[in-house]
Amino acid sequence: MTGVCIGIDLGGTFIKFALLDEGMSVRGKFQSPTPAEAGPDGVVEAMISGAKKLLDREGLSGGEVVGVGIGSPGPLDLDAGVVIGIPNIPGFVNIPLRRLVSEGLGAPAVLENDANAAALGEYLCGSGEGTSVMVMLTLGTGIGSGIVIDGRLVRGAHGIGAEVGHTIVEPEGEPCPCGQRGCLERYTSASALGRYARRLIEQDRRDSSLADVLRSKGNLDAADVNEARKAGDDLAAEVWDRAVGYLAVGCVNLARLLDPDLIVFGGGMAKAGGDLMEPLTEQFKRLHWSIAEPKTTLALASLGNDAGLIGAAGAAWKQFGSGESR
Amino acid sequence: MTGVCIGIDLGGTFIKFALLDEGMSVRGKFQSPTPAEAGPDGVVEAMISGAKKLLDREGLSGGEVVGVGIGSPGPLDLDAGVVIGIPNIPGFVNIPLRRLVSEGLGAPAVLENDANAAALGEYLCGSGEGTSVMVMLTLGTGIGSGIVIDGRLVRGAHGIGAEVGHTIVEPEGEPCPCGQRGCLERYTSASALGRYARRLIEQDRRDSSLADVLRSKGNLDAADVNEARKAGDDLAAEVWDRAVGYLAVGCVNLARLLDPDLIVFGGGMAKAGGDLMEPLTEQFKRLHWSIAEPKTTLALASLGNDAGLIGAAGAAWKQFGSGESR
Repeated sequence: MTGVCIGIDLGGTFIKFALLDEGMSVRGKFQSPTPAEAGPDGVVEAMISGAKKLLDREGLSGGEVVGVGIGSPGPLDLDAGVVIGIPNIPGFVNIPLRRLVSEGLGAPAVLENDANAAALGEYLCGSGEGTSVMVMLTLGTGIGSGIVIDGRLVRGAHGIGAEVGHTIVEPEGEPCPCGQRGCLERYTSASALGRYARRLIEQDRRDSSLADVLRSKGNLDAADVNEARKAGDDLAAEVWDRAVGYLAVGCVNLARLLDPDLIVFGGGMAKAGGDLMEPLTEQFKRLHWSIAEPKTTLALASLGNDAGLIGAAGAAWKQFGSGESR
Repeated sequence: MTGVCIGIDLGGTFIKFALLDEGMSVRGKFQSPTPAEAGPDGVVEAMISGAKKLLDREGLSGGEVVGVGIGSPGPLDLDAGVVIGIPNIPGFVNIPLRRLVSEGLGAPAVLENDANAAALGEYLCGSGEGTSVMVMLTLGTGIGSGIVIDGRLVRGAHGIGAEVGHTIVEPEGEPCPCGQRGCLERYTSASALGRYARRLIEQDRRDSSLADVLRSKGNLDAADVNEARKAGDDLAAEVWDRAVGYLAVGCVNLARLLDPDLIVFGGGMAKAGGDLMEPLTEQFKRLHWSIAEPKTTLALASLGNDAGLIGAAGAAWKQFGSGESR
């Protein structure tokens, strides 16, 4: 089957576009600023016109478009193809995005949440190629996650599954805005580390080189903590190790429940690379059962910020392709 | 398609047999003692002769057997159809059970672990009928568990998934024979409650009516604890509530990861019925996020000790049937 699928990744700052052929090769990419100030109509129009521009640039007509995959922040109503709301785009509420984009581009469309799209991207074209069970964790402000089993995203019975960041790793632990206590993302995410370091400095009056960083920047994130840790700061080391330890608990629990070939890590905290993966793998092995060696590998994601874009196009191929890509 | 599938549930005390038609109706059941003393050959022979006896009794010939499903304790090598070992049947080590039973009955066979078979049974014919995502937890000596998504058991990439009892609910918690710490089954299983009550009485010298029970019986189990709790024993109430609390954490984590329609409970501790389900549902709601009402229902299993038997036959229909039952 010839033709392409269009992937569109809707973010608060940029809208990204890519064309993928059925072999999952990227035929062209493009991005444009998200015109949040233009309201929902303007944003949808930018999605449609950007995709058309990319098709033109690559010398393709609309007739060659097999389908469109849209990755969007949520919450979403996946069955209805509706965006319930996007925190970073004011007014983008109850928008039937799947239908609007499909009509605008004259091709069938599928809507997917951005974390699921990223997981599918890594599974199809990134670190997860060739696996049968893969979990992706994006360690950003919170933890985005997606689970792929035998090529299919695990969405759950009501479309609210695969929320690894809201599994409880500390009973009666830190309160989470979701209403639970002790959620993994309260301990391990790009922002959780900075928040915890700040609390130790401000409330517990602990000494740390991070106090100066906090004064000058006004906040702290995982990168600040890792930098201070590498420069020998004890508090930073404690904060980093704690976050890694809880993440390792989350990984053991994924190994026990889903037995993945691979758990891949993306997002701000994963930019630490080996500084994350080495202690994480060590903690994972330590906490993991001893009746058998760990069979789950932990690795960095490889598609960077394009994972969601490629996964969105991949989702379209899965849904509208001839079957080879399913 | 006419015909039947045979389900055989191999246990340490009994071997159970059932015939299921494709509509998942039981056409006959039968059980015989497990001749553990006769060694592996004798046990396999008893499985074959018992199945033949049941077919005879129901007036069926071997030609009407579409397939055989075998549920067995583990560990198993599912791909190879081999039982690696069964703790309660000495010498039952590295037995190619799938091939032996298939040859003995002249029909294709499938081997499934007993917890998965029980989950499939509840999904096909029990409390889980009509669900799309279901988890079953059998609260016995440990916790057996099975996960069904869209009619398929979740086995994982290496066949070691769906071990809910070995997810960590208390980081650096009680040591588990598996080598991990803080596994759910160390806190919540028919035996875990008795063990904890005993520790409080013997080591912590706590007062409880259970001290007398312990002296006369030599041990304690979940039923003892529940009975004492209902008679007003404070220590028993504390032990029961703690186990229920950890189980609720496990249920929240299943809700976040897999978003099941239903989690069903079987095994010794579930015999407490409403005494388990009422506080469990209450704790589940308390610990569950508040951004949306729980969509996962918690309920008792309905097939009792036959779940594994029926699930084994159901697994055979799924694998060897015409397709309607898949």
